[in-house]
Amino acid sequence: MASLVAPDHFSPTEDAAALQKACTGLGTNEKAIIEVLGHRNAAQRKQIRQAYEQLYEEDLVKRLESELTRDFEKAVYRWILDPADRDAVLANVALKKSNPDYPVIIEISCIRTPDELLEVRKAYQLRYKRSLEEDVAAHTTGDIRKLLVGLVSAYRYQGEEINARLANSEADLIHDAIKDKAFSHDEVIRILTTRSKAQLRATFNRYQEDQGTSITKNLLVENPDEILVALRTTIRGLNDPNKYFVKVLSNGIKRAGTDEDDLTRVIVTRAEKDLKEIKEEYYKKNSVSLDQAVAKDTTGDYKAFLLTLLGSEE
Amino acid sequence: MASLVAPDHFSPTEDAAALQKACTGLGTNEKAIIEVLGHRNAAQRKQIRQAYEQLYEEDLVKRLESELTRDFEKAVYRWILDPADRDAVLANVALKKSNPDYPVIIEISCIRTPDELLEVRKAYQLRYKRSLEEDVAAHTTGDIRKLLVGLVSAYRYQGEEINARLANSEADLIHDAIKDKAFSHDEVIRILTTRSKAQLRATFNRYQEDQGTSITKNLLVENPDEILVALRTTIRGLNDPNKYFVKVLSNGIKRAGTDEDDLTRVIVTRAEKDLKEIKEEYYKKNSVSLDQAVAKDTTGDYKAFLLTLLGSEE
Repeated sequence: MASLVAPDHFSPTEDAAALQKACTGLGTNEKAIIEVLGHRNAAQRKQIRQAYEQLYEEDLVKRLESELTRDFEKAVYRWILDPADRDAVLANVALKKSNPDYPVIIEISCIRTPDELLEVRKAYQLRYKRSLEEDVAAHTTGDIRKLLVGLVSAYRYQGEEINARLANSEADLIHDAIKDKAFSHDEVIRILTTRSKAQLRATFNRYQEDQGTSITKNLLVENPDEILVALRTTIRGLNDPNKYFVKVLSNGIKRAGTDEDDLTRVIVTRAEKDLKEIKEEYYKKNSVSLDQAVAKDTTGDYKAFLLTLLGSEE
Repeated sequence: MASLVAPDHFSPTEDAAALQKACTGLGTNEKAIIEVLGHRNAAQRKQIRQAYEQLYEEDLVKRLESELTRDFEKAVYRWILDPADRDAVLANVALKKSNPDYPVIIEISCIRTPDELLEVRKAYQLRYKRSLEEDVAAHTTGDIRKLLVGLVSAYRYQGEEINARLANSEADLIHDAIKDKAFSHDEVIRILTTRSKAQLRATFNRYQEDQGTSITKNLLVENPDEILVALRTTIRGLNDPNKYFVKVLSNGIKRAGTDEDDLTRVIVTRAEKDLKEIKEEYYKKNSVSLDQAVAKDTTGDYKAFLLTLLGSEE
């Protein structure tokens, strides 16, 4: 369930006017911006952008970019975009880093539904005039490329039916690959990039039953190389998104200085989806609420905005 | 342009009644079936199927399957399906052969538009409860698998913009691979499976200018292995679909006994699209019209049906 608190009824033109007022005159009224945008869902935000464009002949996104700064600006910018377009931006930013941020690509391709991923690929082309897989291929090499191009290109079957015999044989196949230290074996990548999520979970469970330990544990080695880390991220994202997100959030918050990119991304992309469950899982794991952890590690308008999206106003 | 001759106005219920009459009593009236279905486009055929279902509480596709036989049955069955669903069936039949019919997979993935290919992938899942790429992977191995899984998973950028520098560097890269006889080099497969068709055509042209000969000619060797044949088919399909189809038709007709599968597939899938241009190209190449060639090599209702789709009634 969503953590976002959004009213059923709202007025796009009143909201647009409130945002315009918040951006007018000396200094920006960040609180007013949070008050409006932090309580509107994707469809509502879209209507506000359209109303703003009509009323003021100006792009609200650009206006906010020019008014806001740093982490708060980034978070509002991510938040205001349509979800598919936002993922396209996140993927592009991740790829353009001097060290491409593979986990973001893996997260988008493994955790979005197959239909959502298609929408991201369409949005990516609209924005960047290239295909997502083309850019992924251009910014990666070797085994990582094979894995990531396969993941972003997948259109997995979405049904819940599973084939138990197949789960059995593919669990064996993965086990053999791990035993031979052929982690990025073509067959392993083929399985991870083409099978349905339901089928993969059956395979992962079967592996655990047969071996008494999980694949991700068996992939834990000292000083793992890039592909090994990427494979573990892939399996964790496919197997249990909520647990995956809790790990990303915990790592992001624990790290000295906090990883704002990870924190912003997870909260912004999940606030309308399942952030409530992620919060519960976070509490179970850390014995401190995500709201408290975020409040402790962030400041100012950025903090206020994240807490609003978390559904916890101070 | 289409070769199909379909009226602007028609009555789905009258057509359904005519088809029902043609299937009733002793013997089937194949001529009546051709008269109706051979002159209706995809949207019209869909309406006829729906009208038939409502009027007679029976699936028209199943009824026709039980009435018709052999090549004629196959052609009518292919024709009556929605284009995306038909491609899903063609792909599945091609994969299930003891020697998978790779060219069909290549044809569907390279010649359909990127959006059409997405629709085929959706139709495939609906029909077979698995993803197309999953089944392609399961029925192939090695380099062929890499190529085909990449091709069916692609969602290419559809714009016409090209990057000339990239065309240059990737033409060089392909040339180096061919020189080293590393035909199925990962980079070659990456280029063929991710770049837009416009970009690829620029790359192929650049190659031809630099080397004085085409890639496909440079890939011609005696006793080529599977992957080499598949790469040539891929490049021909991406580079010039009409020429590709003319080759398929010419080979299909020339072969002793005629390859009805190829003949039916090309005529049925292109009759509503560009079969007029393919016919012109065929005539230029063979100095005999496609209609004459088809008339000479086929017989009976099958022949009459193909000629109707070709827009050439006798």
